[in-house]
Amino acid sequence: MTFEVVKTDAQTKARLGRLTTAHGVVETPVFMDVGTQGTVKALEPRDLVENGAQVVLGNTYHLMLRPGAEVIAAGGGLHKFMRWDGPILTDSGGFQVFSLAKMRKITEDGCRFNSHLDGHEFFLGPKESMAMQRVIGSDIAMVFDECLPYPCERDRAEKSVEQTIRWAQVSKDQPHAEGQLVFGIVQGGVYDDLRRHCAEELVKIGFDGYAIGGVSVGEPEEYMYKAVDASVPYLPEDKPRYVMGLGVMHQMAECVARGVDMFDCVIPTRVARHGTAITRNGNVAIKAAKWILDQGPVEEGCECYCCRNFTRSYVRHLLNADEILGLRLLTIHNVYALNRFMKEMRAAIADGTFADWKAQLHRQ
Amino acid sequence: MTFEVVKTDAQTKARLGRLTTAHGVVETPVFMDVGTQGTVKALEPRDLVENGAQVVLGNTYHLMLRPGAEVIAAGGGLHKFMRWDGPILTDSGGFQVFSLAKMRKITEDGCRFNSHLDGHEFFLGPKESMAMQRVIGSDIAMVFDECLPYPCERDRAEKSVEQTIRWAQVSKDQPHAEGQLVFGIVQGGVYDDLRRHCAEELVKIGFDGYAIGGVSVGEPEEYMYKAVDASVPYLPEDKPRYVMGLGVMHQMAECVARGVDMFDCVIPTRVARHGTAITRNGNVAIKAAKWILDQGPVEEGCECYCCRNFTRSYVRHLLNADEILGLRLLTIHNVYALNRFMKEMRAAIADGTFADWKAQLHRQ
Repeated sequence: MTFEVVKTDAQTKARLGRLTTAHGVVETPVFMDVGTQGTVKALEPRDLVENGAQVVLGNTYHLMLRPGAEVIAAGGGLHKFMRWDGPILTDSGGFQVFSLAKMRKITEDGCRFNSHLDGHEFFLGPKESMAMQRVIGSDIAMVFDECLPYPCERDRAEKSVEQTIRWAQVSKDQPHAEGQLVFGIVQGGVYDDLRRHCAEELVKIGFDGYAIGGVSVGEPEEYMYKAVDASVPYLPEDKPRYVMGLGVMHQMAECVARGVDMFDCVIPTRVARHGTAITRNGNVAIKAAKWILDQGPVEEGCECYCCRNFTRSYVRHLLNADEILGLRLLTIHNVYALNRFMKEMRAAIADGTFADWKAQLHRQ
Repeated sequence: MTFEVVKTDAQTKARLGRLTTAHGVVETPVFMDVGTQGTVKALEPRDLVENGAQVVLGNTYHLMLRPGAEVIAAGGGLHKFMRWDGPILTDSGGFQVFSLAKMRKITEDGCRFNSHLDGHEFFLGPKESMAMQRVIGSDIAMVFDECLPYPCERDRAEKSVEQTIRWAQVSKDQPHAEGQLVFGIVQGGVYDDLRRHCAEELVKIGFDGYAIGGVSVGEPEEYMYKAVDASVPYLPEDKPRYVMGLGVMHQMAECVARGVDMFDCVIPTRVARHGTAITRNGNVAIKAAKWILDQGPVEEGCECYCCRNFTRSYVRHLLNADEILGLRLLTIHNVYALNRFMKEMRAAIADGTFADWKAQLHRQ
């Protein structure tokens, strides 16, 4: 069995699970660290292990453009190339094609676009995406889909969902890397009936897991939970559910309470580069003048390498002096903090205290 | 005894030594890693230990401007602030005042200048420099001096050397941190008699060690060795000798053959940021197209974390994608490579093969 639900919470839909992949077992609920270009920014594989990371997410679009399939194939796939022996999940590239690239033409087969790096022309559709994910050798591949923006008219959403379902079938039919799991993606925007329709059609095709896409794209927070609530009831109990692009602590907890098992987000690495620490009590701007002489750690009680060794005063100095070590230490802290948060969440589900644990969370 | 010459080479003036500081013993000849702003760029203290670093060099000028004496004092001195328990050497700030800052006025007491960061006005002379180095709490403090440029007219060199000698006396007379060693600096440019005069006067004052300054400031390589040869005979056998700002492998070996024990340079960290690896066979541009599919390590046979784990193809990709991990991995390699080089040099002196070892070195 690929996914095993170890325990379901009595008061909510939260589940404790174990997802078996070709590169090890993932304890869920899990937050996955994003390694866009073959590295979780500023971190080495040993840092990921040290800070509790379970899964690295690679971006098919970025890796296709640079270094490209040939280089990754020569390196023996992404695991060997970046020396990460744990599970890797790859997105399909659809989201980036629609948000980053200069689009040329969309057809039934996919999209012709110009690279945001150098204008070079590429074509990406379900066949090309699955072929690239096969070269990458990810443990979990995502189907090629269209991620709907917010807001989106009903008409466009309807057409797009049908396209996403057809692309999901084509994605499923491609050859995959050995042991590679394939996840479908439920789209449908804010339209509950479209979410249901999409979920039901994807389940007919049959996938190893199901993502809820088009969430955390600028919509109000209640719409996020609405999209989850509109999708989860139509997804199988024995498959993992994944909300893409979400990494805010209390929002992840709310989604877990609604039956979600997996998350990913660039938040911990991105905000670190802007001098922000993620803590139990919210985000903290370490560059702020009030920390200039502060001899406490970035987060009181935190056991990460940054907090065990350095003061806010020192980290603030590094950030203000544009020293790479400053953003690296904050990245270490943020990755640790999010993985610790998920570990605490799993422990709360395990001992039946999830609802109480969730109730006391800081809300940003 | 602070400095012990363990062995002197039979064919050259190379010495194997042990310098005892308040934070441990330094095996010489030693290369010291530069941590300008309270961090060796992109590295943590544990990386320094892992890569054979013995001494970290802090820059008094930079630390005085940012974060400033108050912050370092509040942090308990630089060792505690940056969490480096090994020896720290600080320069006096003289070099940076004359090369980086906007000079306002030079008097017998020192220099009034504007910070290169924000234009804020500071005053730095021998008294202020020694006071700042006392706050930093370095194990080795350098006297405040004027570093002569190359070329430099005889007249100016003469006057400057006298100033340097007077400042050395004032520096010596200041209160120092507990256990802090103080080194004098021999100036004199390309004028052998000025070098001798400066050395003799400094020895009369009496220091724990002697630097040869104004070397590696753009002069032809033979002038570098000439400056060393003009200074070393007038320096005591039982004190360490230090060529400031030098970090090219074969040049360090040539200086060691002339009786020098200590070096420092920004080369390993600076060239890493430009994508250059330091190897036994010279510098290698890892961004070059020829490495695109190369599955070998950055340097064959190297035992550093970078070379044990990653391919040239991967590191090249990281550098080309502006990923911080790329410059960090090259920094790790370069620091390791220079410390390994010094370790091999010490082994060669120890077993009496230094001259042969030096003869086979790659010359850049």
